[in-house]
Amino acid sequence: LSAETQQQALERQSQLTKPPGSLGQLEDVAVAFAAWQGQVKPQINNPQCVVFAGDHGVVAQGVSAFPQAVTVEMLKNFVAGGAAISVLARFHTMGLSVVNCGTAFPADQLSGVIQRAVMPGTNDFSQQAAMSNAQALQALQIGAEQIERLQAEGCDLFMAGEMGIGNTSAASCLSALLLKQDVNALVGPGTGVQGEALSHKQQILAQSCERARALVDSPLAALEQVGGLEIAAMAGAYLRAAQLGIPVLVDGFIASSAALLAVQLNAGARDWMLFGHSSAEPGHRALLTALDGKPLVQLGLRLGEGSGAAVAVGLVQQALALHNQMATFAEAAVQSGN
Amino acid sequence: LSAETQQQALERQSQLTKPPGSLGQLEDVAVAFAAWQGQVKPQINNPQCVVFAGDHGVVAQGVSAFPQAVTVEMLKNFVAGGAAISVLARFHTMGLSVVNCGTAFPADQLSGVIQRAVMPGTNDFSQQAAMSNAQALQALQIGAEQIERLQAEGCDLFMAGEMGIGNTSAASCLSALLLKQDVNALVGPGTGVQGEALSHKQQILAQSCERARALVDSPLAALEQVGGLEIAAMAGAYLRAAQLGIPVLVDGFIASSAALLAVQLNAGARDWMLFGHSSAEPGHRALLTALDGKPLVQLGLRLGEGSGAAVAVGLVQQALALHNQMATFAEAAVQSGN
Repeated sequence: LSAETQQQALERQSQLTKPPGSLGQLEDVAVAFAAWQGQVKPQINNPQCVVFAGDHGVVAQGVSAFPQAVTVEMLKNFVAGGAAISVLARFHTMGLSVVNCGTAFPADQLSGVIQRAVMPGTNDFSQQAAMSNAQALQALQIGAEQIERLQAEGCDLFMAGEMGIGNTSAASCLSALLLKQDVNALVGPGTGVQGEALSHKQQILAQSCERARALVDSPLAALEQVGGLEIAAMAGAYLRAAQLGIPVLVDGFIASSAALLAVQLNAGARDWMLFGHSSAEPGHRALLTALDGKPLVQLGLRLGEGSGAAVAVGLVQQALALHNQMATFAEAAVQSGN
Repeated sequence: LSAETQQQALERQSQLTKPPGSLGQLEDVAVAFAAWQGQVKPQINNPQCVVFAGDHGVVAQGVSAFPQAVTVEMLKNFVAGGAAISVLARFHTMGLSVVNCGTAFPADQLSGVIQRAVMPGTNDFSQQAAMSNAQALQALQIGAEQIERLQAEGCDLFMAGEMGIGNTSAASCLSALLLKQDVNALVGPGTGVQGEALSHKQQILAQSCERARALVDSPLAALEQVGGLEIAAMAGAYLRAAQLGIPVLVDGFIASSAALLAVQLNAGARDWMLFGHSSAEPGHRALLTALDGKPLVQLGLRLGEGSGAAVAVGLVQQALALHNQMATFAEAAVQSGN
């Protein structure tokens, strides 16, 4: 992080042909990139999205509206180009990779998917720890490895997406443990659980957190107890991105639970994060507050896959285009305000 | 407006590989375009922005942070490519036209500017009507003429921008008269009026509305008393766009005051409007409420020029890309939820 170029970028913003501050949050984004890149006129040439997939044993308790087979079916859809994140990656000419961190149904025959399965989905965390310490560390490492690959390819903006039936349940419990809050304040419909089924989901997750809370004395222990393999991989990616100096655009609720885990594991990770969108999922607000994150869009998205981050990429690119290409008052011979 | 394709687009949304409703406002945008274009898979190929410029006699009362000469200086900047809207138009490969509706300083030598000056800026509306009935009608016609030109060129999404030192004052008074609200609830800093200068602006505008209110018995009379030439042109453009079936993406506070004027002149104009962003200017919230408009972005922008609409164009395009290109559950062989 360069305080010098940050200051120079702020000065440039004050000289552009507009009232001071009138580009709002887009000014902040441009200045942040100037600090990250050590360049007064920062550029994004190689944004990349990685979707991490994993299954969740807790779906045996009936907490999701979709059957577990959908996780692998959607992996095929990502690779074939028919999923939302596939469309958005094409729209932004952005790289898209798909990593299997551990699905319940077999996915190892899927070409185009990076195979890193730790286990065939987590254990049912309403009954026992979701994963062992060794499995958690292995899953964190999956994300770190992807960042190392992307850095070698010149990636200058990273987005993590996720796919995993039941992962709003895991993210809700993980957030409750990390934030030391009541899980029922964070639980939402996920992909579409409503009415009695939502009450049931809330009851299962409250019991799961009660079981886990006594065993959790660290962020890593929270991950082991109630986390997901894909959530661990996202957190590992955020941590490594900060170490290697790659800015990240955080997606919605599940990605933000991974971001909070990363920040609790290493507070410095926060310095490299932007937030793409504000999810319709109620727990996201609590996470954004804890992370002091100001999302770029509020469109009521609740899809996951990295879609909320991907939608916001264009706003980041516009922020940089305005910062880099607008004329100054002097260049345009326009009088500045009083 | 085709109710049939609207319904077909809604059905398509329900079949795409995502939880129902999980793309939030982006789903609404896609369905609206399907209805507008009478096509289940709508396309935007030719978005166009027109910036209308005009000056305001009320700046003699010291209501703006910038000198009046800046209006013409910024016209040069638009054409030269250095203004925010110029950068955004390039970013989106979008047409940009600039129309002089009446500046106080001479602008008729500026090449690349469409010359339609009605008068050298409005009269000082704190003292008298801003313009005559004939001048108001002439200014409305400027916008209508631009829409006819753009329709002939195949424009399928229209944005109006504005430039005019003092035009938040005109928009505040016009909104107060159209909404029958106290102007001081709507007045904000504009391009940067603060503290004592803001109190002064509020006092001048309150007096102006008091003067005008007794003389206003129609939306057109409100325009004549306190409006702007560029605001009239924007309203005329919105009205003609609705007549010719071109969807419009409304910009911020000043554009929305023109949108409200258009809707009060012909309620059907509302059917063709989307709203690009929520401005930091306080009066914009009241206008959006009155227009039942749900803006696409909230980034704290308060620049004008059409910039808030232009920033949102990418979101509209992404909404259509997702709607058109995502696979259905059947196409991708993905099980849908219960």
